[in-house]
Amino acid sequence: MKTPVHIAVSGAAGQISYSLLFRLIGGELLGDQPFTLGLLEVPQSIEALEGVAMELTDCASPLLHGVACHSDPEAAFADADVVFLVGARPRGPGMERQDLLEVNAGIFSAQGKALNAAAKRNVKVLVVGNPANTNALIARCNAPDLPPENFTAMTRLDHNRAVGLLAERCGRPAGAIRQAIVWGNHSTTQYPDLSHATVDGRPALDCVGRDWYEQEFIAAVQQRGAEVIRVRGKSSVGSAANAAIGHMRDWLSGTPAGEWTSMAVSSDGSYGIEPGLVYSYPVEIH
Amino acid sequence: MKTPVHIAVSGAAGQISYSLLFRLIGGELLGDQPFTLGLLEVPQSIEALEGVAMELTDCASPLLHGVACHSDPEAAFADADVVFLVGARPRGPGMERQDLLEVNAGIFSAQGKALNAAAKRNVKVLVVGNPANTNALIARCNAPDLPPENFTAMTRLDHNRAVGLLAERCGRPAGAIRQAIVWGNHSTTQYPDLSHATVDGRPALDCVGRDWYEQEFIAAVQQRGAEVIRVRGKSSVGSAANAAIGHMRDWLSGTPAGEWTSMAVSSDGSYGIEPGLVYSYPVEIH
Repeated sequence: MKTPVHIAVSGAAGQISYSLLFRLIGGELLGDQPFTLGLLEVPQSIEALEGVAMELTDCASPLLHGVACHSDPEAAFADADVVFLVGARPRGPGMERQDLLEVNAGIFSAQGKALNAAAKRNVKVLVVGNPANTNALIARCNAPDLPPENFTAMTRLDHNRAVGLLAERCGRPAGAIRQAIVWGNHSTTQYPDLSHATVDGRPALDCVGRDWYEQEFIAAVQQRGAEVIRVRGKSSVGSAANAAIGHMRDWLSGTPAGEWTSMAVSSDGSYGIEPGLVYSYPVEIH
Repeated sequence: MKTPVHIAVSGAAGQISYSLLFRLIGGELLGDQPFTLGLLEVPQSIEALEGVAMELTDCASPLLHGVACHSDPEAAFADADVVFLVGARPRGPGMERQDLLEVNAGIFSAQGKALNAAAKRNVKVLVVGNPANTNALIARCNAPDLPPENFTAMTRLDHNRAVGLLAERCGRPAGAIRQAIVWGNHSTTQYPDLSHATVDGRPALDCVGRDWYEQEFIAAVQQRGAEVIRVRGKSSVGSAANAAIGHMRDWLSGTPAGEWTSMAVSSDGSYGIEPGLVYSYPVEIH
């Protein structure tokens, strides 16, 4: 029997976590590797979270070797190998951008300190909650005893949207696409880049044309989240959880040979980006 | 490249389907077998369903070779290999049981006729929407050209709840449990049976005692759904989708050697049950 690894999830009673947790239970992250779950929520959501934990028990998964609900980050992150920081305060009515940043700075500095104190030294932390790049930077700066490369932020949803929209345009399945890139940030300031992308091995720009790429595609990827809200009536949840699984699985198991993905990582100064910023690059993991 | 199989899902804009679809995308049902999706909804939910389809595209899954939204059952079920009938009318305020049965009889007789007309002759149909046993019976009776064994109803959630609660009581992971049984129906009239169950190979009743089994366990399994609603504030969704995946995967790939699961199937008269009733039995699939 393999020793269980410990996975912690914040914002665990929220919708993205609800989509994420049952996919962990199904073995999508770690295959047949058993694990324990430390679920973190604010005190007022702990009862709802206990209900989620009941449903996880009701999956009778041979992989799940224990689940605990916490409102204390240090308890949730104790000896964690893998951490999904999903919870963040969304922008509410009448809230200025400055207020949003301050509230989230409080949350992510506390979580960074808790990770610094309690997590495994080789913990892998993915920040999903937005503004994800900034939140990851704050958590990392509050965890001085952990290597900075342990902190990443998610641009995989943007990457997958770019791949999906390109594939749809070409009438091909997504598996035909290689080497898309999302640079920079999640959200409307990202830059989705097809200059290296291929469709069935052929340059993507030869397939779709530079006009469509520049005049339609870039804006479509940047605004895809708003478009999903308009059509579905709700924000992207299942596709966000899917991206979180994909990001972490590639980080743990490596990107497929000859391929890269997009991840926001601590800049080492490459491509002229200020060192230390959390910035989305094309990333290979071996 | 393998030829894609066609999977159809009804009630596809609902919450259980939302949990189910992204797990299909992740390869939990069919591994690396590509598939197409035919999603069925009532006309007033088609726009929300188009939003779900956008999110499925945004997963950039190499497995998904096409997704289409339909309000016509025959179009959704055309050439279907695998069908999840998730949608059903829940009991609303002021609705009598008789009303509920009549509304669902209308839905499932139309869907049975559509399956009869359009699905593959070896289609596997799982009814998740309650009353699942009755709905499966109605669909089957309206599909006279399909073998009756192609229609099943879900008691796997009850089965998994029984396994999970027994494992929790014994302080063991769910993988330590074998040979639980749920007889009869989903819901409060089911009979969860531990008389053959084992914990780490030892008779379960020796571990937990007959008093706990008879006085606490049976009622706890029967009422688990209500308990989840009380604690989580919402009904069982993620665990229901998980059970649907487990039921269908075992049906397609076989139960593990020496194990059984619980499925509601057309009775052949075994155990004194009236032939033709859709009834939950212990089931092995080879």
